[in-house]
Amino acid sequence: MISRPELHQALAALRSRVFFTAYPEHPGAYPETEKSAGLAAFEQHLDKPFADLLQPGTLRWAGEERSPWTMKPLGITYPVFDAEALLLRARTARHSLADLSAEKRASILIDALENMRARFFELAFATQHTSGQSFMMAFQASGPHTADRALEALASAYEAITYFPETVNWEKPLGKTNVKLRKTYKAVGRGIALSIGCSTFPTWNSLPGIFANLMCGNPVIWKPHPGAVLPAAIAASCIQQAFAHAGSDALVLQLAPDTSAEPLAFTLAQHPLIQIIDYTGGSSFGHTLESLPGKTVFTEKAGVNSVLIESVNNLDEVLQNLAFSVCLYSGQMCTAPQNFFVPAQGVWDGEKHIPADEVASRLAAAIKALTDNPKAGPGTLATLQNERTLHRAANAPNLGAEVILPTAAITQPDFPQALSITPVLLKTTADQEAIFSSELFGPISIVVKTADRDEALQLITQIARTHGAITCGLYTTDAAFEQKALQHLETAFVQVSVNLTGHIWVNQHAAFSDLHVTGGNPAGNATFSNPDFVNRRFVWLSHRKAM
Amino acid sequence: MISRPELHQALAALRSRVFFTAYPEHPGAYPETEKSAGLAAFEQHLDKPFADLLQPGTLRWAGEERSPWTMKPLGITYPVFDAEALLLRARTARHSLADLSAEKRASILIDALENMRARFFELAFATQHTSGQSFMMAFQASGPHTADRALEALASAYEAITYFPETVNWEKPLGKTNVKLRKTYKAVGRGIALSIGCSTFPTWNSLPGIFANLMCGNPVIWKPHPGAVLPAAIAASCIQQAFAHAGSDALVLQLAPDTSAEPLAFTLAQHPLIQIIDYTGGSSFGHTLESLPGKTVFTEKAGVNSVLIESVNNLDEVLQNLAFSVCLYSGQMCTAPQNFFVPAQGVWDGEKHIPADEVASRLAAAIKALTDNPKAGPGTLATLQNERTLHRAANAPNLGAEVILPTAAITQPDFPQALSITPVLLKTTADQEAIFSSELFGPISIVVKTADRDEALQLITQIARTHGAITCGLYTTDAAFEQKALQHLETAFVQVSVNLTGHIWVNQHAAFSDLHVTGGNPAGNATFSNPDFVNRRFVWLSHRKAM
Repeated sequence: MISRPELHQALAALRSRVFFTAYPEHPGAYPETEKSAGLAAFEQHLDKPFADLLQPGTLRWAGEERSPWTMKPLGITYPVFDAEALLLRARTARHSLADLSAEKRASILIDALENMRARFFELAFATQHTSGQSFMMAFQASGPHTADRALEALASAYEAITYFPETVNWEKPLGKTNVKLRKTYKAVGRGIALSIGCSTFPTWNSLPGIFANLMCGNPVIWKPHPGAVLPAAIAASCIQQAFAHAGSDALVLQLAPDTSAEPLAFTLAQHPLIQIIDYTGGSSFGHTLESLPGKTVFTEKAGVNSVLIESVNNLDEVLQNLAFSVCLYSGQMCTAPQNFFVPAQGVWDGEKHIPADEVASRLAAAIKALTDNPKAGPGTLATLQNERTLHRAANAPNLGAEVILPTAAITQPDFPQALSITPVLLKTTADQEAIFSSELFGPISIVVKTADRDEALQLITQIARTHGAITCGLYTTDAAFEQKALQHLETAFVQVSVNLTGHIWVNQHAAFSDLHVTGGNPAGNATFSNPDFVNRRFVWLSHRKAM
Repeated sequence: MISRPELHQALAALRSRVFFTAYPEHPGAYPETEKSAGLAAFEQHLDKPFADLLQPGTLRWAGEERSPWTMKPLGITYPVFDAEALLLRARTARHSLADLSAEKRASILIDALENMRARFFELAFATQHTSGQSFMMAFQASGPHTADRALEALASAYEAITYFPETVNWEKPLGKTNVKLRKTYKAVGRGIALSIGCSTFPTWNSLPGIFANLMCGNPVIWKPHPGAVLPAAIAASCIQQAFAHAGSDALVLQLAPDTSAEPLAFTLAQHPLIQIIDYTGGSSFGHTLESLPGKTVFTEKAGVNSVLIESVNNLDEVLQNLAFSVCLYSGQMCTAPQNFFVPAQGVWDGEKHIPADEVASRLAAAIKALTDNPKAGPGTLATLQNERTLHRAANAPNLGAEVILPTAAITQPDFPQALSITPVLLKTTADQEAIFSSELFGPISIVVKTADRDEALQLITQIARTHGAITCGLYTTDAAFEQKALQHLETAFVQVSVNLTGHIWVNQHAAFSDLHVTGGNPAGNATFSNPDFVNRRFVWLSHRKAM
């Protein structure tokens, strides 16, 4: 049995969904010297080939990362491998993984998390300078939050693959005699898995699927985004070292770096040896992957997240909360709200009725107050991961809506070259659906005035059903309307956060209690982590033998 | 909470996989008067419109069933409905189903099973005279075995949709203050489901998916095979009456009879309102259904089941067991063995070495002994469901293999017109793969002589991987070879029965302990019942609200 208390706690948290975290999210909870050591470790990687992977067969070295903070290339190169060779090595590694018990796999993967834990700060700087997140978000997202979600997937998979007993003696009474059989049950991994990462959350989005696969007996080829390889490479190295340390085959996980010029994802995805695909990224390629015949595919694609403001107890608190949600990492979280629906007749703020235009202008003011705050603004906004997002924001005034808060350049202390701007806020009416019904990834938000709250609800539901939605914010003090809204949104399988203010935001999804993506609308077909997220990765085989 | 002890016992059996049955399989365990009452009830249906369904909107009446025992039409007509109207009624019924708690759904569905229980004999005669099964098999398969597998699906689904707590108070410490949220979890059915039945096991193959769907909140449209409507119509009526009796909407399950001339299955399957499809039948249509974009599809298609005979303790016992497997319902079970692989150098029978040709001729003799036995033969063989199977058997001598036991007509006592023949047994060599590598549905078996046991293993695995397999029989007294065989077959995700003799056959799959179909090879993508069989039918929604 497993001696690690983390797994037992994680299993308990899975079922009870109460607050649980194996890794504290505050950098201050870790030894003080780790930050400078982490920075030094990160800097050691720069302008060098990345040599920590335990993988043979390098074809050549390539790398194209640049920091959105310094706008300079990181200069790190990664080994590029032949796709066929990666697959053959994964096929060999599959036997080694199959021979490990569920307990042993769990134990090794917890070691891998502990390896990562020792490198949280190095991961943080690596994430900051590839995704463009602030240091704080990079620490939390790629460190403790990733590790907790990976542990959640590990615990889910452990529960799933030990669901049936390994063996039972089965006896069927037949009157005078009994039939006696020994029956065995075994969870067998479906085969080689491919994980395709994204540039904004390079470890958080990939590790749950990778941990689920390794627990279920599926070796993984991890194809990171060419713009955010380093965090994946460090995490991959932590996993490989844990398997090697246990005397097992480190190639159960292989990193497969590629370049924009010579992408590897589709070559691997359509290969007959790939049975499972985990993907985070744009909807079009996600849809292509979902349509590949005979594969088990888990996707998180684009979504249009909405907020409906109907009645509140304290509008200022609400708008401050929403302003932070809009600014956080410049709207580049998949959970960031984009559309703010406000009934044209206005919003009840306690006893007072606030006209829609005033709500819009006060939201603009709240955003401006945050971005103008030199202590809070730049760090909250962080940078844009790439120029396409910059161009999208710059082009927002041409969408046909009124600009009520224009975007502006903003200077990041210590990083004068950073690709950083303030959000643009638009205002339009419900009939201009073409403007707000698809995802405008990045720091672009839209206040939409609707005839009434029911029209807003109708639009949010329709957009979620058609274009997908990962989260939805609802502000109402009317219990009947809240119920009605939840019932409507249920038809589009959208998760709703009601009346959030203060230190909790619609963007945040916590391990062990928040299911991330429902799998029921076009934003994705999978959930971190429900039982489906692990059960689809393996096959139950049952054999019988006469006794 | 549920007061029904069946569910609690079923839940316990699910996890422990020991012998469990809610409904005894022997007709003798039921009140003696039930058989004649069941026959009378069956005869009451003949030559009349079937009037037991609680469904409005009949367009016209149609029916084309004929008994493979009497070769006469049953003369029963069934209501035919407009596809669009069925879907709209299902959409309405979905709300009613959504309003029922997991406990209430389970309670109503156990009532439905009890309604079926009271009609087991009527179901038996209905199944006998549509599928062509013997009375005994029809009683067991459509009565207790169906009810047990439906209860198994019910219990699996009950466990799945109550996996997360309905609500938790979540509190995150933030130093001076705590964030407090109320989080709720709800399993929401994916939408309207379609169940497409087959002619050989009209209730056994359909009810597990139907019960799983109804438990998960998905209304079902049940499209039975036009050649075997009556058993489905009786079972549907039992379910509708249970919902109506509970004051709920009976249209959560609608029967959708069609005709060969105007089939409804594909019209319904491709309709955007259909979210889930359960299908039993041929591989080609099954593949088409699996390829429909955006649907959750569960299939059981064709497979080629093999037996490998390598070494045994008592060859006669083994061959008697296999002869019964071959004869049972004339090879029309999806689990029936087709290919018998025998190493050319022969089989060890204890200390004696039996040449392959002798094994083949003794298998032929065992089959002949059974079919010639007037007490056991005709009842075991029963009839052929349709003429296509007759033609396939008649054509077997033209396949290119040696005929070592020709098919012959056989007279069924009491049913002189019955469509009944004895099995044909062929013999060939491993190089004639074209002959034995695809499914020859019906009473056609082939002894394949291979160079050695390893070649046999190789061929069985390859055929399972390419053409699918639902079961595999292995006879060996060599523990090392047994391990090797299981490892090989695992790569094709095939379930293996080892050394069965006596009153247990490779064809039989018991509820609560045998997983039926693995979902890992082309024979089907779903399993009765693993957690995946229910988890894919609903979406977990989680909401959060500030406290």
